[in-house]
Amino acid sequence: MSRKTESGKWKVESWKNKKAVVLSSGGLDSTTALYWASAQGYQPYCLIIDYGQRHRREIQSAEKIAQLKKIPYQILRCELPWGGSALLDKTEDLPKGRSYEEMAAEIPSTYVPARNTLFLSFALSWAEAIRAEAIVIGANQLDCSGYPDCRKDFFDAFEKVVETGTKIGIEGKPIRIIAPLLKKTKADIIRLGRQLGVRFEWTWSCYQGGDTPCGECDSCRLRAKGFEEAGARDLSYAASR
Amino acid sequence: MSRKTESGKWKVESWKNKKAVVLSSGGLDSTTALYWASAQGYQPYCLIIDYGQRHRREIQSAEKIAQLKKIPYQILRCELPWGGSALLDKTEDLPKGRSYEEMAAEIPSTYVPARNTLFLSFALSWAEAIRAEAIVIGANQLDCSGYPDCRKDFFDAFEKVVETGTKIGIEGKPIRIIAPLLKKTKADIIRLGRQLGVRFEWTWSCYQGGDTPCGECDSCRLRAKGFEEAGARDLSYAASR
Repeated sequence: MSRKTESGKWKVESWKNKKAVVLSSGGLDSTTALYWASAQGYQPYCLIIDYGQRHRREIQSAEKIAQLKKIPYQILRCELPWGGSALLDKTEDLPKGRSYEEMAAEIPSTYVPARNTLFLSFALSWAEAIRAEAIVIGANQLDCSGYPDCRKDFFDAFEKVVETGTKIGIEGKPIRIIAPLLKKTKADIIRLGRQLGVRFEWTWSCYQGGDTPCGECDSCRLRAKGFEEAGARDLSYAASR
Repeated sequence: MSRKTESGKWKVESWKNKKAVVLSSGGLDSTTALYWASAQGYQPYCLIIDYGQRHRREIQSAEKIAQLKKIPYQILRCELPWGGSALLDKTEDLPKGRSYEEMAAEIPSTYVPARNTLFLSFALSWAEAIRAEAIVIGANQLDCSGYPDCRKDFFDAFEKVVETGTKIGIEGKPIRIIAPLLKKTKADIIRLGRQLGVRFEWTWSCYQGGDTPCGECDSCRLRAKGFEEAGARDLSYAASR
């Protein structure tokens, strides 16, 4: 149980056996967030979203992880027909070989309009239906390829939506949005994941849409940088190339 | 900007050719909101959402209205598999014959978890993809069957999400959420719709899921009350019962 104190902060009283919907993409961030939620004593429910992404291979990873961890999961199918992103349109070239400075400075063509707003809305709907207390999302604002919807002020704004626009919210028991990796670098996330026992070889990061990681898209490059900085090796993933 | 002339017609002074995504359910509120958006000079794009609602009959109405008005539209299919609402589960009984005081005081079993948050998120994604300037939603907080996500503070909170969590938002050109019917009674909406030339006989309100309106669900009752208070007759709709 958690409650808001007079200072406006959340105080956790007990998290044991409280349900949390975890947004699971099959990537290393969301998988680490899932292990983190379990370690915190949450009972996780994995929400896997098939939105027509070119790299649908990640859905297999997300499903496999939930199955191997024996976590209830749901694959929500909702293809976004309007495009507007290189992740939705296989005919568009992906950015390749961008420097990390470029990634931080510019929102790339892989940005999917309002993706995390949609993902949180789905998670919110499920969370309210099963009376979960939290939504856990593996977003991080440091190594995030420039996306706007991976930042603290966005998650704060979404919590206001939960408070004002749901039955559970106006009854005074809002669902918290928890982004435990928000301020971590990719290397920090990998270190945390290793502590938690994450099997990174089960995860999938590549945007390209093939059966093997391309090694050149932003997502592959951020992953490689993270492993390098963490002083770890990403053997299985690299070997599958 | 637009203004009403002495003859009661809307005259558009600017906003011409600005795109707006209009959430279109085929009901009388969203149809009036659609006509309002056109009268304001917006170029509307109708978003019709098939979320597994028991009253899918409304989708036919929404589609017919868009076709007859020659407005581009998109039907987004996204069944919500987790239930949590009598509108998603045909085996649940709907509230029937509730008084208007009961409707205002209590959130009914037809509440769909986070529905308007989801609908606005879909609209936002499409709006950002086509560079629309506004999202128009026909919500009203007076005759709304007690739903929390039909209130001004919810829409204000969602605008903050747009500002913080989208590319267009952080670039300083956020998409406005416009709920032109928010403070109107059903009777006011019907009066406005009649001024705008809405063909109410094309719209659909009943929740029950049959081919003819039941006349007893909250939605049918609010419609009937609205027509009565507006001093108008809902001939075709009533006749189809």
